[in-house]
Amino acid sequence: MARERSSRADYAQFKQMTTRWRDNDMYGHMNNVVFYEYVDTAVNTWLIENAAMDIPNGEIVGLVVETSCTYHGSLGFPEPLDVGLKVSRVGNTSVTFEIGLFDVNDQNAAAEARFTHVYVNTETRRPVPLPDGLRGALEQLVVG
Amino acid sequence: MARERSSRADYAQFKQMTTRWRDNDMYGHMNNVVFYEYVDTAVNTWLIENAAMDIPNGEIVGLVVETSCTYHGSLGFPEPLDVGLKVSRVGNTSVTFEIGLFDVNDQNAAAEARFTHVYVNTETRRPVPLPDGLRGALEQLVVG
Amino acid sequence: MARERSSRADYAQFKQMTTRWRDNDMYGHMNNVVFYEYVDTAVNTWLIENAAMDIPNGEIVGLVVETSCTYHGSLGFPEPLDVGLKVSRVGNTSVTFEIGLFDVNDQNAAAEARFTHVYVNTETRRPVPLPDGLRGALEQLVVG
Amino acid sequence: MARERSSRADYAQFKQMTTRWRDNDMYGHMNNVVFYEYVDTAVNTWLIENAAMDIPNGEIVGLVVETSCTYHGSLGFPEPLDVGLKVSRVGNTSVTFEIGLFDVNDQNAAAEARFTHVYVNTETRRPVPLPDGLRGALEQLVVG
Repeated sequence: MARERSSRADYAQFKQMTTRWRDNDMYGHMNNVVFYEYVDTAVNTWLIENAAMDIPNGEIVGLVVETSCTYHGSLGFPEPLDVGLKVSRVGNTSVTFEIGLFDVNDQNAAAEARFTHVYVNTETRRPVPLPDGLRGALEQLVVG
Repeated sequence: MARERSSRADYAQFKQMTTRWRDNDMYGHMNNVVFYEYVDTAVNTWLIENAAMDIPNGEIVGLVVETSCTYHGSLGFPEPLDVGLKVSRVGNTSVTFEIGLFDVNDQNAAAEARFTHVYVNTETRRPVPLPDGLRGALEQLVVG
Repeated sequence: MARERSSRADYAQFKQMTTRWRDNDMYGHMNNVVFYEYVDTAVNTWLIENAAMDIPNGEIVGLVVETSCTYHGSLGFPEPLDVGLKVSRVGNTSVTFEIGLFDVNDQNAAAEARFTHVYVNTETRRPVPLPDGLRGALEQLVVG
Repeated sequence: MARERSSRADYAQFKQMTTRWRDNDMYGHMNNVVFYEYVDTAVNTWLIENAAMDIPNGEIVGLVVETSCTYHGSLGFPEPLDVGLKVSRVGNTSVTFEIGLFDVNDQNAAAEARFTHVYVNTETRRPVPLPDGLRGALEQLVVG
């Protein structure tokens, strides 16, 4: 439990996102599942804006093969949150994004998530090497 | 189906909210259920910011007794949306909010919702007259 | 508030559905938005099972033009619920479903929803008369 | 990607859960976030049924400190799914559950999740040793 919390400087870009009443569960804080809605949104927003992916009609599609999240503190409606994004690993056919969820007033992440995509051909469903354009864009999200 | 769509001038205030990947369903547009997440969020945000309600620990609580939504057009991730709020009826123990969901580039609502709260005592669960402070705040959301 | 609650006999068929932790909001009961997830599921399940609709790839598609829900009582995780379905109006190009959400131990509905679909051509997006097969299937959901 | 998929025999108990229209995203399969709604539901259902926890009003509360999921195959509406549950580690103040999500016709898991709870005192928010009753119940979920 003595994990080091990541800070804002560890991420390549940020988006502010609004919370919803339904994000909070019976304990009055953001439910652990909901953190992943922000994670999924951060990754897909970036892919649409920066990688010219035609979701969901392109020739290749990113299959989610693994996700995880470490929770350090609570977040929740009605405060918005800042979502940081970076790429921690660019493989031949896969990429791992890291996503930090921040209270807008906090320099350290309330939660840190990892999200791994394998890119496959839409028809054959077999892994394909990352297209050069996508790879170049992803490399701009690598920090340090 | 020849309904008049409401315009931005019909609402007392607006909040911009961000969409999420999961808002869209298999048809690629915001699912009809999700519109109500924005509705619920607009009402509760206003109550927290303007009516000093202690949610969920106050002496009175708003029970949702009826909601409805008319859908005129599609919305969806990744675009944000503008959510308009007004009060169309202040009763003795109840209030009806009207909520317009707008594409950020459109003057006419993509959807219009109604949301009726009855205020009850937290213990007895029986309707109670709206407290004066809440009534006064609600009346500022009446348009025209 | 003196609404008549519908009973199980008012519906043509039932499906039991399981609830989820996240269905409940800060008040400890099923959030008003979540009721519509069951409504949407009941209608789409019936269309898939009984109307041979190829969702979302068919020539016609049902656009949701209006939904509403009246809430009489609370439901919530962890109890499952029984979802009743009927058709209250079959028009030329549209249909209105009515959906009752029941506590498994209660003969009267905890909530009653209405859901109106207009069927449109997938390409032109213009309303089309209900195909005979769909109309025939829908008429079997009319009660009384 | 050459992961061994767990089988039904690897779990201590199963619950069947129904899917919802909204579980599927634009790709027509269950969205990666939604898998965690089943995970959260499986753990909380078990705690309520077997560990006599008074959620959310007890003296101790389980804080979610880490979750993860490995996705092997697709699931989705309208088919129900079988959710397997076991405990893989009982610590002094924490427990790790493992949850398998299965197509009802498949002996191997479509996805495998891990969910770690740390139990804290509701007031002090500091970790507390697992109460004996809870520990005993959890040990019955250990497999092999």
